Amino acid sequence: MNKIPIIEIFGPTIQGEGMVAGQKTMFVRTAGCDYSCNWCDSAFTWNHYMQSEIKQMTAIEIYNELKNIGGDCFSHVTITGGNPALLKDLEYFVDLLKENEIKISLETQGSKWQGWMLKIDEITLSPKPPSSGMKLDLDKFDMIINNLSKNNVSIKIVIFNDIDFDFSIEIYRRYKGIPFYLQTGNEYINETNNLILTQKLVEKYTWLIDKAINNEEMKDIKILPQIHTLVWGNKRGV
Amino acid sequence: MNKIPIIEIFGPTIQGEGMVAGQKTMFVRTAGCDYSCNWCDSAFTWNHYMQSEIKQMTAIEIYNELKNIGGDCFSHVTITGGNPALLKDLEYFVDLLKENEIKISLETQGSKWQGWMLKIDEITLSPKPPSSGMKLDLDKFDMIINNLSKNNVSIKIVIFNDIDFDFSIEIYRRYKGIPFYLQTGNEYINETNNLILTQKLVEKYTWLIDKAINNEEMKDIKILPQIHTLVWGNKRGV
Repeated sequence: MNKIPIIEIFGPTIQGEGMVAGQKTMFVRTAGCDYSCNWCDSAFTWNHYMQSEIKQMTAIEIYNELKNIGGDCFSHVTITGGNPALLKDLEYFVDLLKENEIKISLETQGSKWQGWMLKIDEITLSPKPPSSGMKLDLDKFDMIINNLSKNNVSIKIVIFNDIDFDFSIEIYRRYKGIPFYLQTGNEYINETNNLILTQKLVEKYTWLIDKAINNEEMKDIKILPQIHTLVWGNKRGV
Repeated sequence: MNKIPIIEIFGPTIQGEGMVAGQKTMFVRTAGCDYSCNWCDSAFTWNHYMQSEIKQMTAIEIYNELKNIGGDCFSHVTITGGNPALLKDLEYFVDLLKENEIKISLETQGSKWQGWMLKIDEITLSPKPPSSGMKLDLDKFDMIINNLSKNNVSIKIVIFNDIDFDFSIEIYRRYKGIPFYLQTGNEYINETNNLILTQKLVEKYTWLIDKAINNEEMKDIKILPQIHTLVWGNKRGV
């Protein structure tokens, strides 16, 4: 069976972001990304220092590891990265979860298409704003949104500054009707004092709320913090 | 036109709880409640000290006030209390919002039924756990859940202690398939230092997450904090 590059498997815990915020879930984080965002909080999925941490695993091995650590405590799995949409062979794993009646969420930036995305229960597409240093391919993003028009899909944009916010207005306008989430970015990924981190994140979140609630164009939106960072700080694997 | 007792109207802001967490919304808070929960964070809606704050308003007056303070910045209104489901005449207001293409959320404990609840876009029923000192009428709750079976309804339970958690398991079991939210209670409604409050709330939230993620029965649930309390503390009107 084909192998999938995995950087971490953990849970059960809660999903801290977007349309499934608060959901009790297991996480499967794939290695590799076609992006390298300036502020990536999971750079260990793509920077070369972490190559030795990557495990090549079959779908069954991943599933067994989930059962091994999650036992009988879960019915939901989140696939995130990196960019899982780089991996055609994730289809085997997606099918295996479906066979076992496990709900699946996917997190991806919307730069790549895979047929298995149609089988996902909850899809978060997170186009990266200008502060990432990445450039969104709008034609490709249009195609992906169209392909998923009958699925449970949402758009989530992480906001670091005013320019990112302006970008989010353009995306909101272009994809009106798709559930739309704004989220504060975490600029403080090296902050180890959780109390200071929480204070800074709450301040940033308040800034984003103020901008969004006073905007006349973006009416039907949700504005969320990264809940897990408020709770666990910059710790990995929670 | 019949008048509705209103204790506050504010926004735009974000919804801090449950199925619509993060939603940009206006709030309309009705006065009066059939409950008097020990830890109620909106006791000003029902305790007699606040009688003088209640305004009797027609549907049109409420709508005009929303436009007056929210301008053209909103397309979503949350009706909360107190218990709005005490008020038959809210139907006029609900119809007026619908005519103006405004989405409506309702927050109620599930102790009273009103026909206009069928017109609400997102309904949160929050049966009160034992720590509230209230007793849930399960037959009535069954009836309300049945009436709303084709609507976008969720159950949210606020948890203060182990006994509340056990109660939430019973409710989860009884209404399987209904989107289910656990939320930490705020025991610190007199805490004015926001930093201390945030710390305490995060600790409590971590406690609830730990209990919930290790429970084998409650698999498909969302566990959320009161986001607005993390941001604004115990301040009213935000």
